[in-house]
Order: sequence, then C-alpha cells, then structure tokens
Amino acid sequence: MLISNKVKAGLEASAWAIRMFDDLSRDDAKETFDFRLGNPEIPPPALFFEELKKAVNNSPEGLHQYSPLGGHTRARDAVANTLTKKKGLPFTARHVVMTSGGAGALNIILKAILNPGDEVLVLAPLYLEYPYYIENHGGVCLTVETNEDFTLNVDAIAARLSPRTKAIIVNSPNNPTGAIYSEASLKSLAKRLEERGRKFGSTIFLIYDAAYEDIVYDGVQLPEIFKIYKNTILAASFSKPLSIPGERIGYAAVHPEMDNAEELADALTFTNRVLGYLSAPVLMQHVITHLQGVRVNLAEYQERRDMFYDALKSFGYSLLRPQGAYYLFPKTPVNDVTFMQELAKEGVLVNPGSSLGRSGYLRIAFCKKKETIQKSLPGFKKVMDLFR
Amino acid sequence: MLISNKVKAGLEASAWAIRMFDDLSRDDAKETFDFRLGNPEIPPPALFFEELKKAVNNSPEGLHQYSPLGGHTRARDAVANTLTKKKGLPFTARHVVMTSGGAGALNIILKAILNPGDEVLVLAPLYLEYPYYIENHGGVCLTVETNEDFTLNVDAIAARLSPRTKAIIVNSPNNPTGAIYSEASLKSLAKRLEERGRKFGSTIFLIYDAAYEDIVYDGVQLPEIFKIYKNTILAASFSKPLSIPGERIGYAAVHPEMDNAEELADALTFTNRVLGYLSAPVLMQHVITHLQGVRVNLAEYQERRDMFYDALKSFGYSLLRPQGAYYLFPKTPVNDVTFMQELAKEGVLVNPGSSLGRSGYLRIAFCKKKETIQKSLPGFKKVMDLFR
Repeated sequence: MLISNKVKAGLEASAWAIRMFDDLSRDDAKETFDFRLGNPEIPPPALFFEELKKAVNNSPEGLHQYSPLGGHTRARDAVANTLTKKKGLPFTARHVVMTSGGAGALNIILKAILNPGDEVLVLAPLYLEYPYYIENHGGVCLTVETNEDFTLNVDAIAARLSPRTKAIIVNSPNNPTGAIYSEASLKSLAKRLEERGRKFGSTIFLIYDAAYEDIVYDGVQLPEIFKIYKNTILAASFSKPLSIPGERIGYAAVHPEMDNAEELADALTFTNRVLGYLSAPVLMQHVITHLQGVRVNLAEYQERRDMFYDALKSFGYSLLRPQGAYYLFPKTPVNDVTFMQELAKEGVLVNPGSSLGRSGYLRIAFCKKKETIQKSLPGFKKVMDLFR
Repeated sequence: MLISNKVKAGLEASAWAIRMFDDLSRDDAKETFDFRLGNPEIPPPALFFEELKKAVNNSPEGLHQYSPLGGHTRARDAVANTLTKKKGLPFTARHVVMTSGGAGALNIILKAILNPGDEVLVLAPLYLEYPYYIENHGGVCLTVETNEDFTLNVDAIAARLSPRTKAIIVNSPNNPTGAIYSEASLKSLAKRLEERGRKFGSTIFLIYDAAYEDIVYDGVQLPEIFKIYKNTILAASFSKPLSIPGERIGYAAVHPEMDNAEELADALTFTNRVLGYLSAPVLMQHVITHLQGVRVNLAEYQERRDMFYDALKSFGYSLLRPQGAYYLFPKTPVNDVTFMQELAKEGVLVNPGSSLGRSGYLRIAFCKKKETIQKSLPGFKKVMDLFR
C-alpha cells in the first residue's frame, strides 16, 4: 500500500470534515447556503487591518525571519500581560509559546505530555479533530458523554479516570453545542481530577481549548478555569477573536503555579519545533502583539444567533440558545444524516451530529452573512415540515 | 513524570538546536558573530514587499479566512504551472498541497506514508531535524554516511534497503555540506531503489527536500530528480528563495506520473489537516501566487561564500567551496566541540559537526551581514593558529 494504513482509514472515516472545506456552490446551478465550516464571514476588526498595514508598510528589518523558538519575546510578553490581568496569576513570557493557531497549540501540548498508550478524555459532542490530535502522538482517545443539555457529567468523567489518564480536553464555550460549563461543575471536575491524581500518584492535566473564549453573548462571564485547577494548560487562538483563522496564529500557556511549569514550557517549545511548526508565523506574531484584548464586534454574532435561533424555534426545531461560540445545535426529528440530506436538496449545507459524537443533531455555523442566513430559512422550514 | 519520556530525552539531546535560536549577544558585553542558524539576513526581494503591500492595502474580502484544505486553488495552480515548466511534467493543482514551510511539508509527507516501524534513510551529515520528523510518525530513522567529499555512497545506501524501507530523504543542495548530488549518482540511486522495490514488492519513495533548490552558485544546473525517479515526493519552501523563513510557507508535490498519485495527494491534504496545520498561512499563500520564479539576489550569497571561503582557506582551514545552500562545512584540526568552544571565546558562534552526524567539522551559516563575516575573521584565524 502506498499510504499509511491509519491515514487510509482516516481518509475514509472523515469524509465529512474534508467536504466541509469544499466549495460546493460551483457544482450546482442552485444557490447554496453553507453552514458547515466555522469560517467566519464577519470581517476582522478595523484595528487588525491598521496594525497589519503598519507592519507591512513600515517593514522593520528582519520582520520575516525566523523568530526565536517559542516566539518573539515581545509577543509572548504581550500575551503574558493579558493573561496576568485576565486570570489574576503571575504569567510571564516563560509560560507562553506562540503557535500555529489553536490546532497547533493542542498538538504541541499533546506531544509534550503523552507517552504511548496514555489516555486522554474528550467530551461528546466534540470537535471532530480531537481524536486525530490525540492519536498523532500515540495517545488513546476516550469519549465521555455530556448530559442531555450538554452540561458536564462529572460522575461519568470520574468513572473513566485511571492510572493511564494523562489529560482531559475541555472546550468552553463549546464547539459544537455552544454550552459554557458552570463554575460549580468545573470545580467539581477539578476536585475529582485532584483526588484521582493523588490516588494514582499522577498528574491529570486539564487542557483548556479556549478557541471561543472571546465569543460570548448576553454579557455572560466565563468561569476562570485557571483559578479552579492548577494543572491547566491553555490552547488559545486569535482565529476567532480577530476573525483570521487562515493566518494560523495562537498560543499555548502553562499555569504559572503548576509544579515544574518551566519544564513543561520548555517541552512545548521543543515539540513546537520538532513537529515542524518551528515557530508561529512571524508577521502575525508581530501584529497580535499590538492587538491584545481586541476582538470582533460580538453584536454581529449575537444578532445572527438570535435571528437564526428565533426562526428555527418558530419552525418547530428543538434547540438551546447558545451562550458562546457560533454554532447552533438543534435536534433532528429523524436520523440526522437523512435530515441533512433533505436540507442539502434545498441548498442548505450543515454537519450531522453523528460526525461529531452525537447523532440526532445538526451543527449549523452561524458566522455567515445575514443574507445567507435569511435566504436559507425557507429551506429549514420546508424540511422540518416534511418530518413533523 | 510531567512530560513525555521521549520529549524529555529529546530536550536533553538537542541542546545545540535549541541554543541555535538563542540570542547570546545579550549575555555578554563582547560582540558576537553568530553563524549558527540559517536565518537569512539578506532581505526579501523587492517584489515580495510589493506583493505583500498590494495584498494588505487592497485586502480582498475573506483574505484572512481558512483556505480550502490543501490550499487556495490559485496558489496551487501557480505552483503547478511553475513545476510543469521547470520539470517538464504535467503537474496540476491536484498534485500540490500548500504547507507550513518545508518542515510542514516533510512532516505531512512522512505521516502520509509511514506505518509503525517503517524505515526511512537519511544521509549524514544531515539536517538535524530529520530524525525527529521520522519518529513523530512512528518511523525508524536509519543514517547512511555520504562519502568523504559528501557525494552519494550508493552502495552504502543500497546495503541498508530492506522490505521495511519506505523512503529515503535526499537534500540537494545540501544542508550542512553545500553539496549538489550529480545526475549520474542520482540515476544510480534511482536504479537501486527501483531494483530493490521490485524485489521486495514495495514502493520506496524518494523524498526530495528542495529547501535550497533555488540557492545555487556559479551557474550550476541542478539535476532534475523528478526526471530521474518516478516515486519522488517534493518538499519545497519559499523560505530561502524569498528570504521569509518566519512566515512558514511551502508546499508538498507528488510526481504526476506516480501510480496512485492522487491518492497520495489526498493523503497529504488529510495529514496537513489532522497534524493541526489545517492549511498554510493564507496571506502568504496569496502573496506567493504572484511570486513564482522570484528569488533573492544570489550574487549577494555568492559574494559572501567567496569572501568567507577564501579567508578560511588562507587561514589554513580545509573545506570545499559549496555549490549551493548557504553553509560552509570546514574540517577541524581537533575535536569539533573543542574548536567550537575556542571560537566562542572569540565571540564566533558555529555548530559542531558532531551535532549534524559528522564529527570533526563545523557548520557556518554565511547568510549573514558582510560586516559580521568580516569582523569574525580574526577570531577564525586566531583559533586555527592555536591548533596548527
């Protein structure tokens, strides 16, 4: 066989994910309304364009050279200052590694901590790449269901903890459900992770996938996971707050009060190098240094959420109003793939929940043009009417 | 243990590589002349700045969004056209995947083809990251020595081919030696790879690391590996031709006449995704689309090579005049680490050959300011005089 067996199997298994990125509109004379991929159509904030133009037009010497491993000190300082203010803990550049987006951060974290066969828990429904990221580095992915309302099921998680457990990945606000885990549930989770860690004589890391940390609605305050659990490693990204996912810029950060925090930070710098990322794209390292705390206009997302949610609700869809991220996750009255296929006949493209660890649901990325959402609504209504 | 055993060992073993990126000048009042890292101080070509400014100042809608997996079709078309012209083979966008630099290309290629325990041959002296890249994806790295003059030792390579051999990585012009492998030696290698592949009923890939393909001197013509061996996979980068290594933009390409070329290209798109690269940085994908065939002024490098080579030769160093890339690789009259340490006392920083698979040599990256080279020369002379 030409290609690796695992890659061959992966290619076959993940056709959904691959098709998410396809431009299907060209294959069909009919108009399509594509809500599959969380590729935001809200433009980056004006300040992003200003900083980018400033960098490119002034072009300081050496701007496009390799940065030091781990990233430019200025960028890491800027991130550490932001984290210190936000989380009230003494972060320094030493705790921060600039990465190729949030996906890069997750991969270097997993490679830094996993020995072969170590287990990593993920919560379903889930971001469909987690199992790949874990397997990339020899880990074993164990899936634990969240509750029916997508809140944490701490007992179910605790039941899967073992001496082989190395980490749990927590994503809040959540892709695909939009759920934000409560402070109480995170404290309860932390307590169990600490208890079991003590019992097993191991450290169980909480990898906090903060991709949507800045995309929250209704003035909700996110509980501060770093205040709740010391063995937290952060995987963060500028993709969503700045609406620049194609530029691949993010960072990993280690809890400053974790035992051996600096050894772990060194390991992250090392894995960022040997995985071939080498360092994060430098022009973007430069730009984000000056854009701490800047984010897209959340009112744009909130407006879309409400418009879309209210319409689907009125058509008879059963769904929660997401508190963060930019996905709706309605129930389907029939098999989700069947429902998705009917929607596709109307030009409406979504992902089936069964590809995200929970069948009977659809994921709808609403980070799209308002016009696209509006024009798709008759299709959503028509298909629901078919099955009610 | 907090971090992975392999990462812990790697951190300890690769202190040289980590220190290469350090800014040592700040630790010492004395002036330093740092030739450790191939981080070019020759600025990018004027056309690069023009295209980058044009992109950023005009800012087409969606410029910073995710590209399709595998890269923007325009970028892949542009690369395929260039390859078609250069190599005289029918490349299309279908054969090209945009990557996060050459290191990203090598990693997605290795992940796409390796099953656990598959062997990959590398040639010493070597780029020090190859063993990590191979081990990242479960492969076993076997090192084969080149000849004393750094030419291919085809018999030595053939002796290591087995049914477990999946690939050989060939880097020409070579980092660290500057050697360019001759057409005759590559043909002889291809013949042996074909023979053994037929005998074992396997495909042995030649992974051509073309990082320095555009950095050649004295009008030398590179032999065209794609014309010589059908099972060639290309790992290419814009880092060196455009002097933008920090921007992480390159590509992988599959020989269009390889059996199942499209399956392999699909696998590369998949591994680019699941390794967390997702897609190459998009602003740079846009820029390189318009910069096909553009490269830095080679006269700048050639001048430095000659200046540096002539000086070292006159001080009694034994070395070859490199035909490509931007490294000198002189012999040391004593242990290379001892020699390197003496040079460091003079503020001259280089890499020991022993960290690159051949002790008794030094690697000197001459892609630096002329002034740096000139000011370092007394140190090089003084240390050679110590040991002659």
